[in-house]
Amino acid sequence: MKIALDAMGSDARPRPDVDGAVQAAREWNVSIALVGDETKIKTELAKHDSRGLTIEIVHTATEIMMTDHVDAVKSKRDASMNVAVRQVKQKQADAFVTMGNSGAAMAAALLGLGRIRGIDRPAFAAVIPSGTARTLLLDIGANAEVKPENLFQFALMGSIYAQKVMGIPNPRVALLSNGEEEGKGTTTVREAYARLKTSKINFIGNAEGKDVPRGFADVIVSDGFAGNVMIKTMEGVAESLVGFLRAEIKSRPLAIVGAALAKPAFDALRKRLDYAEIGGAPVLGVDGVTIIGHGRSNAKAVKNAIRAAIQAVDGNMLDAIRAGIAQNLN
Amino acid sequence: MKIALDAMGSDARPRPDVDGAVQAAREWNVSIALVGDETKIKTELAKHDSRGLTIEIVHTATEIMMTDHVDAVKSKRDASMNVAVRQVKQKQADAFVTMGNSGAAMAAALLGLGRIRGIDRPAFAAVIPSGTARTLLLDIGANAEVKPENLFQFALMGSIYAQKVMGIPNPRVALLSNGEEEGKGTTTVREAYARLKTSKINFIGNAEGKDVPRGFADVIVSDGFAGNVMIKTMEGVAESLVGFLRAEIKSRPLAIVGAALAKPAFDALRKRLDYAEIGGAPVLGVDGVTIIGHGRSNAKAVKNAIRAAIQAVDGNMLDAIRAGIAQNLN
Repeated sequence: MKIALDAMGSDARPRPDVDGAVQAAREWNVSIALVGDETKIKTELAKHDSRGLTIEIVHTATEIMMTDHVDAVKSKRDASMNVAVRQVKQKQADAFVTMGNSGAAMAAALLGLGRIRGIDRPAFAAVIPSGTARTLLLDIGANAEVKPENLFQFALMGSIYAQKVMGIPNPRVALLSNGEEEGKGTTTVREAYARLKTSKINFIGNAEGKDVPRGFADVIVSDGFAGNVMIKTMEGVAESLVGFLRAEIKSRPLAIVGAALAKPAFDALRKRLDYAEIGGAPVLGVDGVTIIGHGRSNAKAVKNAIRAAIQAVDGNMLDAIRAGIAQNLN
Repeated sequence: MKIALDAMGSDARPRPDVDGAVQAAREWNVSIALVGDETKIKTELAKHDSRGLTIEIVHTATEIMMTDHVDAVKSKRDASMNVAVRQVKQKQADAFVTMGNSGAAMAAALLGLGRIRGIDRPAFAAVIPSGTARTLLLDIGANAEVKPENLFQFALMGSIYAQKVMGIPNPRVALLSNGEEEGKGTTTVREAYARLKTSKINFIGNAEGKDVPRGFADVIVSDGFAGNVMIKTMEGVAESLVGFLRAEIKSRPLAIVGAALAKPAFDALRKRLDYAEIGGAPVLGVDGVTIIGHGRSNAKAVKNAIRAAIQAVDGNMLDAIRAGIAQNLN
């Protein structure tokens, strides 16, 4: 198996990207094509003992920046993420992984790989902490407006990703809505509810915003507007609450002792919320395994994004989605 | 000024309702009509020294339960919240306040008072903590689907409530969207953006989910679907993070000391997030001041809900909304 990694993706590129690739190659015996500036990549690679690892460099001097508009995918034909996508398209690699500009990465994957037959709209997913476990939330922004059939397809793809990559045997799938009862939500949500209820998916009904962090379901399905509002609200609230509590503890009598005693708890929380533990999230529905990580990724996050790609390839995720679509045509 | 309070609203009715009414009457010299079961209300009233206060009882034996469907508003004509609404409709009171079933309360207000001329769809608002201040979020669930003009009217009404009741001179109004740039969001959001940009409202653009807890705007405007997802996500994340941190601190070495030192910080956070500090949130667009509080309300929350009603009446909120609609017709 070979993973095409956009080595010019992360904010601190190419160091975390190369470091993570070396770690992944060593740990899982996977081949990696590092796509990007050869000189810079070689400088980073030289810091590691990569003997026995199958790591190659695919040179390109162009890269897409975090500040670039998504159209840069078309104007910068030889940008590292486009070249990495072509590796997959031309069957030279099995999966595309990047820590780069997520809007551009999604566009690069969609333009370069196309859609899986039967999937009308690909979705961008995120893995979020929920209770003691994790939940896949999709769509988080690729499709502000959807039809019921799109939500159904998101549910199907999310369920398969949860099985194949997150290792959840019979994932519980819920629709994000403004009330738990059947009949709550927009017309689109209500129609998707009816479609899901009679499908082979393990559909458990509607989830409200408050249910998600409690681990109510393994997969939460939403349009990209409300899904985006949800994930960014989670981020904003977590940041604001933690900031408030830290400041309060530090402002109290015995502040030094209090802060010292609270620190391990805050560290544990940070670890729980840490994107590096998760590593990346898939674009589902494009015809090639695509994992996008955070720009702030460190080597561990890159390694874990590569792991998600390996699991998706190993689990034949794309074939499973194709089979799921075929089974659920009605 | 007289406030019609549904005394059978809160979960622990009528105690917190009556206690809060007595406190409000004493503090702000306002008349209060307590609507509900006379015997039960009298029992609670007898526990207070209410000499010099203008508190009357309007008896009705029927009440709407938290578990009742919203249709109960029609079948239980003499339910306490319906009778309280009629007090306002018949000009015997200036505002309607309840801690009861919020869906039913909204329906009771809408059916009993009608809409303000020029407002197509009333909205349910919530006051949420944001940074060091507070933000009005609307709609949080009355309208799962909206048109651009509805969002514009929500913005207008929210802006006026923020001025008249929350005391914010020139409220910054933002549209909830899945990106900050103009052009982000659904067709409806984009059209509302264009409408707001050329209006007299202090419109500052789109807000993302992460911006709201940071105090990005004073008023956040949304359809009732995404607004509901946002407020319930805030609730769920806050509960889950605080629970996690408490458990972690208690599981560490020197847990007793750590927990004791962290307790004031958690108490401060609870106070900040406490609905009782806020007291209630308005239904905007019905032709009568309507404030709905939380079923879990204690006396302080009831008192603060009454205060919101007093401020809305004192500030001539309804006339201000009418004038705003007239000014912004285009």
